[in-house]
Amino acid sequence: MKELNIAVVGATGAVGQEILKVIEERKVPFKSLRMLASSRSAGKEITFMEKTYTVEETTLDAFKGVDVALFAGGPASRAFGRDVQAAGTVVIDNSSTFRLEEDVPLIIPEVNGEAAKNHKGLIASPNCSTTLLVGAINPLHQKAGVKRIIVSTYQAVSGAGAAGLTELEDQSRQILDHKPIHLDVFQHQIAFNLIPHIDVWQEEDYSKEETKVLHETHKILDAPDMAITVTAVRVPVMRSHAESVYVEFENPLSPDEAREILAAAPRVVLQDKPHDNIYPMPITATGSDDIYVGRIRKDLYNDHALNLWACFDQIRKGAATNTVQILELLLEKDWI
Amino acid sequence: MKELNIAVVGATGAVGQEILKVIEERKVPFKSLRMLASSRSAGKEITFMEKTYTVEETTLDAFKGVDVALFAGGPASRAFGRDVQAAGTVVIDNSSTFRLEEDVPLIIPEVNGEAAKNHKGLIASPNCSTTLLVGAINPLHQKAGVKRIIVSTYQAVSGAGAAGLTELEDQSRQILDHKPIHLDVFQHQIAFNLIPHIDVWQEEDYSKEETKVLHETHKILDAPDMAITVTAVRVPVMRSHAESVYVEFENPLSPDEAREILAAAPRVVLQDKPHDNIYPMPITATGSDDIYVGRIRKDLYNDHALNLWACFDQIRKGAATNTVQILELLLEKDWI
Repeated sequence: MKELNIAVVGATGAVGQEILKVIEERKVPFKSLRMLASSRSAGKEITFMEKTYTVEETTLDAFKGVDVALFAGGPASRAFGRDVQAAGTVVIDNSSTFRLEEDVPLIIPEVNGEAAKNHKGLIASPNCSTTLLVGAINPLHQKAGVKRIIVSTYQAVSGAGAAGLTELEDQSRQILDHKPIHLDVFQHQIAFNLIPHIDVWQEEDYSKEETKVLHETHKILDAPDMAITVTAVRVPVMRSHAESVYVEFENPLSPDEAREILAAAPRVVLQDKPHDNIYPMPITATGSDDIYVGRIRKDLYNDHALNLWACFDQIRKGAATNTVQILELLLEKDWI
Repeated sequence: MKELNIAVVGATGAVGQEILKVIEERKVPFKSLRMLASSRSAGKEITFMEKTYTVEETTLDAFKGVDVALFAGGPASRAFGRDVQAAGTVVIDNSSTFRLEEDVPLIIPEVNGEAAKNHKGLIASPNCSTTLLVGAINPLHQKAGVKRIIVSTYQAVSGAGAAGLTELEDQSRQILDHKPIHLDVFQHQIAFNLIPHIDVWQEEDYSKEETKVLHETHKILDAPDMAITVTAVRVPVMRSHAESVYVEFENPLSPDEAREILAAAPRVVLQDKPHDNIYPMPITATGSDDIYVGRIRKDLYNDHALNLWACFDQIRKGAATNTVQILELLLEKDWI
């Protein structure tokens, strides 16, 4: 397999750090590795696979000689993404900046990997809530055709980066110790609370997180008419998202058929033995690259519908792992 | 107003303690008050409205001379409910024991108070998740006729009583301090986790919590054909439940109409200014007797449907307050 010169942009953040871990674990071949971040982090040292790297400031010059740049997310994508692409480096971007642009494939490798084939040098990785939803339902969609989705999310604080994790931990301590809490990342206290507000507000009072899942799912599944309703809620969980999903199909699909399909699907793990207390949960999904699906039940009022509960590690498959898997796909298929 | 001899059964538990608070706050008139609990708690002293009461063991004899007994929930309901009723004491019961029995009205006073009129001496208060759902949607149902509900719950640990609260607090500390956690009340770690499993499993792999909401809603709204799908999830929140609700009506209903109806509905508070970060949340609902509703959005794929987010204090309106409000209803209407 080719060995590439790789840059990780946002290498010091929660997702960037996880991208490095995933590169090591999955033995992604590389010739050289460049660690880029904002000027604030430039000069820091990162030890990775027994070698020490100095973090460099993200500038256009810093991408010279880089074959592929993995952008962890954040403002660097908008500031540099298109220029880096134009300069000949392949960009794999985890931010929302380019996801809906027409010349940018939006890729979950096991779902629509083929769409990356004719990429123009910029490929996007989806929003974490989209990846969880589409990863869980696509195997069923291929079999029975999804018509309608109603999904309520239970989203971990890691979606707001390392600062989100710190805020939940700090506030939890402050509340347990009966001390005043500090608000910084979230609109309200998140410890022992629920906040039905993720990202800014859009048309019809949907949040941007909710509309992202709608539009990104349409694009990934090439199903612009699929009816999708999303309610996005932040919960006091560290780093794994969950979703409660009602899904209606063109054709009837029994829970047993759904279980069989999901058990055989790549990168999906069926956890559906409720009588043994086995179902997806954040604490068991954390640290894994898989999408866990369980609580599969027939809808009592629609024999074309099922209900299910899905969970995955937001920092890994929701961000870092999917980004690296896109790179692996390009390498395997010789699309880079 | 009549002054009654009242017994509180389960007076030392989380709900029993809150029933006492609500009696004081709402100035419910009483001639005498008896504090009953299990033999384990008998002999304890409770100071209430500047008077000290000794907790007595719940036995059939202990109800002699009692006009109305408020059962907080738990095994005492099954053990004593019917016998106490037969002995002439009016029972208002917060447990699930009798809710679906034909001779037992299941009452949310502002929703179906009239159904308590011809009670036979035993009246039930609904499951907390039912009260939140029905309390939030009934004003809209009266206007536009609810056909279909798909609800995902976000349920606080207080639903498992005082021990649930202690377990979340203890586990949160243990995890923050990197110590081993103790499991007692819940099937799995609840701190910083989500558990899609409340109560035992029933037909079609729905949990009993999920089927309770279905059957109790049918009974309260006298709408046995209403299509209701429930996913019940325990979340690491202390004492306020939330629900993400998709609701489809016989007749079209706009978000503005829904807001107007809810703003005027008794015991419902509209909190729907997302651009000002105002929406229902556990931390703002806690301690209140109201049902908070917000995030009202038209469904983008069904002009007969709305989506909303509701929240309330599980120990108060979800249990203690509704139980006391049933007593107030009987007193006001002279049905006791």
